[in-house]
Amino acid sequence: MSDSDATPIVSALDPRSDLPGALSAWRMLLGDVGVMVDEAALDRYARSTSSSSRRPAAIVRPRTRDEVVQIVEIARRCRTPVYPISTGQNWGYGDACAVFDGQVIVDLGRMDRIERVDAELGYAVIQPGVTQLQLAKHLADNDLPFWIDCTGAGPNSSLVGNILERGFGHSPYGNRFQTIAGMEVVLGTGEVLHTGFGHYPGARTTHVYPYGVGPFLDGIFTQSNFGIVTQLGLWLQPVPEAFCPYIVLFADDKDLLAAIAPLRTLRLNRILHSVPHIANDLRALASDAPFPRDRLPGRARLTPEVRAALRKEAGIGAWSMSGAFYGTSRQVALHRKLLKKALSGLNARVLFLPRRRLAAGKRFARLFGNLTPFRGMEKKVRLGAALAGMHSGVPTGAVLRGCYWRHRDGVPSGFSDDTDLAGDRIGIMWMAPIVPFRREDLALLNGEMDALHERFDFDCHVTLNMINERALAAVYTIDYDAEDRAETARAIECYEAGVRRLFELGYPLYRASVWGMGLVASGEGDTFWDAVGRLKGVLDPDGIIAPGRYDRLQAGAALRPRQA
Amino acid sequence: MSDSDATPIVSALDPRSDLPGALSAWRMLLGDVGVMVDEAALDRYARSTSSSSRRPAAIVRPRTRDEVVQIVEIARRCRTPVYPISTGQNWGYGDACAVFDGQVIVDLGRMDRIERVDAELGYAVIQPGVTQLQLAKHLADNDLPFWIDCTGAGPNSSLVGNILERGFGHSPYGNRFQTIAGMEVVLGTGEVLHTGFGHYPGARTTHVYPYGVGPFLDGIFTQSNFGIVTQLGLWLQPVPEAFCPYIVLFADDKDLLAAIAPLRTLRLNRILHSVPHIANDLRALASDAPFPRDRLPGRARLTPEVRAALRKEAGIGAWSMSGAFYGTSRQVALHRKLLKKALSGLNARVLFLPRRRLAAGKRFARLFGNLTPFRGMEKKVRLGAALAGMHSGVPTGAVLRGCYWRHRDGVPSGFSDDTDLAGDRIGIMWMAPIVPFRREDLALLNGEMDALHERFDFDCHVTLNMINERALAAVYTIDYDAEDRAETARAIECYEAGVRRLFELGYPLYRASVWGMGLVASGEGDTFWDAVGRLKGVLDPDGIIAPGRYDRLQAGAALRPRQA
Repeated sequence: MSDSDATPIVSALDPRSDLPGALSAWRMLLGDVGVMVDEAALDRYARSTSSSSRRPAAIVRPRTRDEVVQIVEIARRCRTPVYPISTGQNWGYGDACAVFDGQVIVDLGRMDRIERVDAELGYAVIQPGVTQLQLAKHLADNDLPFWIDCTGAGPNSSLVGNILERGFGHSPYGNRFQTIAGMEVVLGTGEVLHTGFGHYPGARTTHVYPYGVGPFLDGIFTQSNFGIVTQLGLWLQPVPEAFCPYIVLFADDKDLLAAIAPLRTLRLNRILHSVPHIANDLRALASDAPFPRDRLPGRARLTPEVRAALRKEAGIGAWSMSGAFYGTSRQVALHRKLLKKALSGLNARVLFLPRRRLAAGKRFARLFGNLTPFRGMEKKVRLGAALAGMHSGVPTGAVLRGCYWRHRDGVPSGFSDDTDLAGDRIGIMWMAPIVPFRREDLALLNGEMDALHERFDFDCHVTLNMINERALAAVYTIDYDAEDRAETARAIECYEAGVRRLFELGYPLYRASVWGMGLVASGEGDTFWDAVGRLKGVLDPDGIIAPGRYDRLQAGAALRPRQA
Repeated sequence: MSDSDATPIVSALDPRSDLPGALSAWRMLLGDVGVMVDEAALDRYARSTSSSSRRPAAIVRPRTRDEVVQIVEIARRCRTPVYPISTGQNWGYGDACAVFDGQVIVDLGRMDRIERVDAELGYAVIQPGVTQLQLAKHLADNDLPFWIDCTGAGPNSSLVGNILERGFGHSPYGNRFQTIAGMEVVLGTGEVLHTGFGHYPGARTTHVYPYGVGPFLDGIFTQSNFGIVTQLGLWLQPVPEAFCPYIVLFADDKDLLAAIAPLRTLRLNRILHSVPHIANDLRALASDAPFPRDRLPGRARLTPEVRAALRKEAGIGAWSMSGAFYGTSRQVALHRKLLKKALSGLNARVLFLPRRRLAAGKRFARLFGNLTPFRGMEKKVRLGAALAGMHSGVPTGAVLRGCYWRHRDGVPSGFSDDTDLAGDRIGIMWMAPIVPFRREDLALLNGEMDALHERFDFDCHVTLNMINERALAAVYTIDYDAEDRAETARAIECYEAGVRRLFELGYPLYRASVWGMGLVASGEGDTFWDAVGRLKGVLDPDGIIAPGRYDRLQAGAALRPRQA
């Protein structure tokens, strides 16, 4: 763990760096439109949902793999590091920001080609600029019987970017690292590396089998800074004959904890065969309305009484779990029964949301939603439909509504699916440890994290996500008012204390934010990070790619409040 | 591809190597029993099912991780490379042999501790000497409700060794690389590296989530020579409520080909949720009896007429597929229906082998097996029972019977589960390409491989294994008489021509044999192997671990007939 008290911001720029030379060479390569240095652009890329931002020195925007190669070669020659982003929607983890100030962003957003979809074997070959919406639409427009796995990051977020951060979705393909095969990577040397079988001329199996022969390298290009991934093969899930989303409601904390063992049994036996997400009440409340400043002036955390009242008004319990079943009609019917049976005897309400019910709900809410007894129903139906969509290959930004909890104006009236959280000056930081799928670990961690948030006067927003059969990826969120300097400083303290505590307790994060890299990649004498540093040294000997990203360089750099 | 005509055997020994010094230091460390140099031992480790063998200079046998560290440190100091094996049963791919002659084998067979089984989360932490039988027995003896995934390599083969070669089994956990979490590796530097979360002190999630935070490294320690894996976390599959093995019989080649599309649909939709294996008639025939030398003197390949006659005598078709369903009774019943339905209208016979049927078959065969109409039934029942066992966590050596096809004496009368193929002087070589799960690719490849075998006068034994939802791992086997020098030389030619052809056609191997490393790890100017070489350079700077194993060192070394 780094010591936050004594650590100045470090610039990764080599004093011998020739930025003007690099910029002029990049302009030759990409034209003026491909290299941005105007203040407005730099400001835009510096915007962040985080407690701190990083202002780039320039943004370069390649359109092709070969341009990426040349960008890297120029960067090496001019000793000017570059920091790749896909579409810059790494919300809450760094957005479009580099780890250090003054870096050159390589925005891969213009590399948005869907190179190929194999409709027989079910995979797509895509570039980093391809968004969730774009691929989903491509499949729909071409009547291809496949769905993508969606995350809640919104329709315009990059698939490749999320996968390289080892993000996860909701569907049976939600453990996304297990659904890729065949990467193309531009190394820090400028070499183009094809992983798996891709480096054998004419190989026909590059995108159907990830490992190739010899060392399996894909893993080292996730959460790292060894190269720039310019293409990968992504497996698509076949559209099932039947599909049924469900929601399970738990009235109280103890009801969820009592359900953990039966849920684990279902997950281990792949009856829960997707990646269900379990959210606490605050996540649900936050989607509806912001923190009630009028009821709790000067506070940033709900009192137990207000929280209970809000829950009651919204008609929700402590936790709700959302998932879906996929298969033939009979399989889905059977799985529904098995879920009901496993939770029978517990205080858990299981609701199934087949398409026809959602459609009927929509009609009903439109007709009667203004009558008192049905007020709020439209919102719920809308959220249900968004979740159902997300489980079936239709990306949505709806769950991002919850990020406006501490925003003074709440969710903007013009909120749309392609909301720009950074532009809206949202304040969120996620602490995302992996937790064994076990009641004791979860009870301990939920207690610890809630106490921590209480200490810093924040609400503890939580989701628990069944990333695999044995583990939950928990996300504890700090929602703070990014316009309030004192609250922002407190949020940073809370974040750093929280991350430290998670490591102390033995639950390390599965993913780091741009400003929290130093918290994971430290540890003097840790052979793991020693080895990672040496791998970096031979794949990117000049340290040209994303310095500080999942490496020790940033171990000395601390968080700092964003410039107002 | 290397040129086999002009390539001498290379010794990997550094001329400055101080083998006597190393031996004496290892003896100090391990005692006399831990260091073997006697001729009998060297002979035993040199035995090989392959067309060539490698004779080691010594065998060292550590009992602990720390001893491995010291073995590596001594090896570095004395410039004497070491070649790790787990239990030395890498049948058909190199057995217990190193890539080069004169290397020191590190036999990890005495590191056979099951460190821990977590009966709640379903994983074991094991050392490389732990065998399939040992872990299966441990689970049974302790009434732990989990099964291991089995391969056909026999009860005494190592789990870790097979996983590091990216081998595959039969069960839902058959894609074995996806069922591990948390490795401990002694690097060539002598450092001890823990992957995933394992390097964070006190981490509680090392064995429930493989990726950790930062680059995911496990992949680079499979099919490589960067370190010695001394421990890993292995996920165990929960014993299902119901379990039903099945066999599908295809009368003719065209019947299998017609079934490929519906089988792929079932696999993509995870109705086939294990790793079914499809074997051709020769594999089945070979389990029963050796090549009929009396009917075809001087030949090593069946004529079409004899092959048809043998098929008829054995009552089998061209192909048979073996798999199993796992789940609740209703799930299994439903899956059985779905399989039957998908294949209805095709010329395919589906047989289910629930436990009670196998038990009845056993009784029946014992009572009536000597009566003419039921002759051979006992063998079939025995094979069915072995397959069913293999699908449900009971390792067996029964499928190794098929390796005796060209052996002059056939399967020995005393054949047991722990048969020693190398000791029995079996001649087998596998060519194992990955094939897209598609009729056209499979038809092309089966045709090419059979023509190749015909050209060299060998039978083409085939299995097609559904390693994932989009690919088949095909295994084309050359069975040859290892006592016949001319036949052995022909087998080598056939192997080299076959491997070359597979790469030319675009279907690279998923795994290489010790003597075929040069065929996969060549390609001047291939960035992949360049990068692999550089990774080697920083994880094992003195080239102390397994020189030639999945690296370019051996690109110059050719096959050669084993010494008679």
